[in-house]
Amino acid sequence: MSYQPIKVEFVNPFLDATSAVFRTMLNTELKRGALYLRQGMTLSHEISGIIGLSGKAKGTVLIGMNSDFAIAVTDKLLGEKPDGLTPEVIDAVGELANMVAGGAKTRLEELNMSISLPSVIAGKNHTVSFPSGAVPIGIPFESELGAFSVEVSLVEVA
Amino acid sequence: MSYQPIKVEFVNPFLDATSAVFRTMLNTELKRGALYLRQGMTLSHEISGIIGLSGKAKGTVLIGMNSDFAIAVTDKLLGEKPDGLTPEVIDAVGELANMVAGGAKTRLEELNMSISLPSVIAGKNHTVSFPSGAVPIGIPFESELGAFSVEVSLVEVA
Repeated sequence: MSYQPIKVEFVNPFLDATSAVFRTMLNTELKRGALYLRQGMTLSHEISGIIGLSGKAKGTVLIGMNSDFAIAVTDKLLGEKPDGLTPEVIDAVGELANMVAGGAKTRLEELNMSISLPSVIAGKNHTVSFPSGAVPIGIPFESELGAFSVEVSLVEVA
Repeated sequence: MSYQPIKVEFVNPFLDATSAVFRTMLNTELKRGALYLRQGMTLSHEISGIIGLSGKAKGTVLIGMNSDFAIAVTDKLLGEKPDGLTPEVIDAVGELANMVAGGAKTRLEELNMSISLPSVIAGKNHTVSFPSGAVPIGIPFESELGAFSVEVSLVEVA
């Protein structure tokens, strides 16, 4: 299979959805950094929530972070600080991916997409790769809880 | 979110699709082992292809293996033995996930599912987790190329 990179007009809905999720669920404002292209088998974040999108376009949304950020987010969501990478933290990261993908899906109504279940990858030394040609665009964010990235790979179905 | 485990009648289509992919694409017959439930944050396979499904049911298909198996499959697909975990191997693992999910989707026509793009996770020491309650069923396979597993998490959308 060969794919084209994501269209620029598809990026903003993911940006807006991420900001909205952090504002409404975590009362946290985000500052966005410069977009980047994620190419090759670079090492991945310590924890990633991944979820699939399909419909008139198909692709993947990844939200990647270190464990301190994941724990801080879970603390703020549940009001109790988790003692390391507990199942609650894993669920919170999956739920973040779910909410960002759900928000972007709503904003990209014309693509009529639906979302799959999230998977959460954790480990200090692994790679996450996408199909050749489906180069994801990465969006780095900073906040008072720490830094994280959202990476989006999305192609229109012929 | 809380989910139910996958219904047993949804498992066979993934089993049949996997056998069909290996028979037609790799001229390889599979021997199936005993199904298992994948619970908690157990360590994952060295390489996993993951792909999302959505529609009247949503979920995730994972095909997990060690690097020797991934290299053997790529060798057989391309007719040239890759020199380690090259981008060709990563693409082949993603394509396996894509073909297994696509085959199961066709066999589960009543669920009207579509599939996302594959992601491929590689690394010797990482975990892949699914949402609490969406406990995946694992299907171990053996073949002349080596052993691998298919893990399926699928829930009907209310």
